[in-house]
Amino acid sequence: MVDKKSLASSSNTCVALSGGVGGAKLALGLSKVLKSNQLDIIANTADDFEHIGLYICPDLDTVTYTLADLSNKELGWGQAGETWEFLNALERLGGESWFRLGDKDMATHVFRTQSLSSGLTLSETTAQITQRLGIAHKIIPMCDMPVATKVKVESGELMAFQHYFVRDRCEPKVTGFEFEGIKDASPSIGFSAALNNTNLGSIIICPSNPFVSVDPVLKLPGVMAAIQAATAPTIAVSPIVGGQAIKGPAAKMMKELGMPQTALAVAEHYQGRIDGFVIDEADAAMVADIEALGIKTLVTKTMMLSLQDRIDLAEACLAFAETF
Amino acid sequence: MVDKKSLASSSNTCVALSGGVGGAKLALGLSKVLKSNQLDIIANTADDFEHIGLYICPDLDTVTYTLADLSNKELGWGQAGETWEFLNALERLGGESWFRLGDKDMATHVFRTQSLSSGLTLSETTAQITQRLGIAHKIIPMCDMPVATKVKVESGELMAFQHYFVRDRCEPKVTGFEFEGIKDASPSIGFSAALNNTNLGSIIICPSNPFVSVDPVLKLPGVMAAIQAATAPTIAVSPIVGGQAIKGPAAKMMKELGMPQTALAVAEHYQGRIDGFVIDEADAAMVADIEALGIKTLVTKTMMLSLQDRIDLAEACLAFAETF
Repeated sequence: MVDKKSLASSSNTCVALSGGVGGAKLALGLSKVLKSNQLDIIANTADDFEHIGLYICPDLDTVTYTLADLSNKELGWGQAGETWEFLNALERLGGESWFRLGDKDMATHVFRTQSLSSGLTLSETTAQITQRLGIAHKIIPMCDMPVATKVKVESGELMAFQHYFVRDRCEPKVTGFEFEGIKDASPSIGFSAALNNTNLGSIIICPSNPFVSVDPVLKLPGVMAAIQAATAPTIAVSPIVGGQAIKGPAAKMMKELGMPQTALAVAEHYQGRIDGFVIDEADAAMVADIEALGIKTLVTKTMMLSLQDRIDLAEACLAFAETF
Repeated sequence: MVDKKSLASSSNTCVALSGGVGGAKLALGLSKVLKSNQLDIIANTADDFEHIGLYICPDLDTVTYTLADLSNKELGWGQAGETWEFLNALERLGGESWFRLGDKDMATHVFRTQSLSSGLTLSETTAQITQRLGIAHKIIPMCDMPVATKVKVESGELMAFQHYFVRDRCEPKVTGFEFEGIKDASPSIGFSAALNNTNLGSIIICPSNPFVSVDPVLKLPGVMAAIQAATAPTIAVSPIVGGQAIKGPAAKMMKELGMPQTALAVAEHYQGRIDGFVIDEADAAMVADIEALGIKTLVTKTMMLSLQDRIDLAEACLAFAETF
């Protein structure tokens, strides 16, 4: 076992790829273990969308609010102690209210929309927001160009992600995904720099939805090449535990796509793209099958209920990375 | 004395020109006396501005909130029972917070901005907002094109109106006004139709600031010609009572412009543009001087403290109009 205390004192850096809630939990754990210059948290931006004239970045905001200790732990999105005066008034005017925008949360969207229209990039805008919220660690959007996840559903329709996810509560049956604009997009400068850092010690794919949170990040032109060129191992944490998604539609999507809803199936999805896989003790029986894919596997406690759980999982992942 | 009961039963229509608070009070009074098809309330839009990416119409909103019984009577702007979660969060992000946008109020600005950018006019957008807020009477923006009041101040600077009015609390010394864009603007379709209505019985200039609330409305190309072509009398209510402005910087502006701060000076300002003038009992001594300007004068109670005061003044103005 690697000495955990050595992690923060080493000069190794870590790139963490994150979607929303589950990813943000591990990102928070990593931020408690690593110094601010040791961690680059890359957030998926393919579920960003324009709504009622505002530019909204759900995953970026979930990671930001989580690291600023502002996140609403009951809802799993938005800010704690949120109020809804704006949304109720908008509803009265006949405005769209299916996407729940709290009064505090609104400030982020209005600030960002104004900043982007003044010509700053999403990376620059995010840096300003995270700094003002007192976050020491870097939170970096995967890219500064619009990439939009579209969910192909049984009816043949190609749905905007938030329409599928929030408005229609993930009810339509999924048949596939497209990432509009991804061919013309490139990773943000900060993301590229993080992957090319000569001190890079680990790339950690947080327990986020493989299809809609992680794939858009990995499929950005140049990202897989940079990951494969790096000497650092790439380690994914399974978002499926005991056949269930901790949060969100990952398991439901796997079922609809004809995949078993197992950690093994997630490992197969990532095969060729990761070096290591972290699964929960509940799935220990799958180790041999996953290792047969050529993926080194760590079994540990992956359910993050407390802050200490987040820290423990972060330390376990970093220690695991040192074994490659 | 004209029978007050006959006012609402006559088919005569009334056009009320209004700025913010004072104007909205009389507009409310008129709406309690006249049926919805008898009253067109025209709001000044020259103090509209774009702020943090939102299109904000202060006078239009004050009139709207007043007629919807949503207005904040203590503040004199915004909505009653307003909360400030958005603005506090925006301040934390380093956003501009000098213009106080409440959480409920935000819905109006977001809704309007989105509606305008979808291609609807300000008139259409306003009709939608007032309808959703249950307002039976028509509230019509003076025009659908941008006109921007600029305040010339002692330093030589030409200030955006809200910067002068809100951000700098009317402190700079005024030397004059300009209405940017007014030469290329035309009255909204609703405003023109109201002035050209064959049943038009009165044009009432509410007790609003003559320089920044009323002049932009009257100086729109074609408005004075339509007013002069109408057989209906134009009656202004003095915003100056006993040498003081009831609300706002009117008296301060008059002083800085070298005018006496009197109802008589307001009448002189409107000379040639109005047929009748309504002054407060406190200024009764000025009747002869005002009538010497060729302006018929009514002395009545113009301070509107209660709803009944608003109704009484509305009835007095309408009855006065019938004497021409």
